[in-house]
Amino acid sequence: MKKPSPTLVLAATLAFAAAGSACAQQAPKPEALIKWRQSAFQVVAWNSGRIKSSLDGGYNKDQVLRSANVIAAIANSGLGSLFAAGTESAKGWHDTTIKPEAFTNTARFAELGGEFAKESTELVRVVSSGADATVVKDQFGKLQKTCKSCHDDFRNAN
Amino acid sequence: MKKPSPTLVLAATLAFAAAGSACAQQAPKPEALIKWRQSAFQVVAWNSGRIKSSLDGGYNKDQVLRSANVIAAIANSGLGSLFAAGTESAKGWHDTTIKPEAFTNTARFAELGGEFAKESTELVRVVSSGADATVVKDQFGKLQKTCKSCHDDFRNAN
Repeated sequence: MKKPSPTLVLAATLAFAAAGSACAQQAPKPEALIKWRQSAFQVVAWNSGRIKSSLDGGYNKDQVLRSANVIAAIANSGLGSLFAAGTESAKGWHDTTIKPEAFTNTARFAELGGEFAKESTELVRVVSSGADATVVKDQFGKLQKTCKSCHDDFRNAN
Repeated sequence: MKKPSPTLVLAATLAFAAAGSACAQQAPKPEALIKWRQSAFQVVAWNSGRIKSSLDGGYNKDQVLRSANVIAAIANSGLGSLFAAGTESAKGWHDTTIKPEAFTNTARFAELGGEFAKESTELVRVVSSGADATVVKDQFGKLQKTCKSCHDDFRNAN
């Protein structure tokens, strides 16, 4: 596997693994962490669906920007903290669909988390700039690829 | 009841009720809308907890900003579209806890949604400005009041 660049590793660390030292005193149960991450990805799915719908059915910049902001904020929120040790197999809203590899190949998992943050942040930038729908669609495609890459490697089909 | 100012009503309309015309061609089922709104508020709860934890245990600006960004992005996402007619009593992750009043007193419901958007956006501004933890705490308190107001009026205890 190609070694990730130091910049990308840094971005991944900042965006994905930032659990925050001030949170150390609280130790949420694995069930809570899993419920939160399942919720976060549901919200991402809701907003991805709205973006796709807008791109397919008459592009609305303001609406796409609202959705892109949500996805980017979540992608940059420190999602890595929701994949703490102990969350390999517990139940949130439903049994977790995470693969064991997320807890062994943590460098690749964090790298993909960093790409998710990078491409969603770029989507906000592109939409905000007033770019044409075709340009937005291209960037949205790049974002969706990061979703698929991570699902392929680290999520069991459900 | 005091009549809301036109400005506030406008803000509420923009922030909360913006369903987006481009979404009109898709009609998600009530169960999906409820699942998305339950997920959205779980993500808000996760991030509210992280902010509280940081304010209580040694303020970390970057971490609080990440969480505030998530809450503000969700509050400004057009959540009103997730409370469409037909979602009064169906089940998402669990039975909805919404009160019937949300579908009858829609002006007040939208007003509170607007306040949620306003105070969370202000929290992002305050944190970004580098304000002291006491100032951030004050603004976070204002945000939490908007949560409580809406829960008191429109959510059944669960």
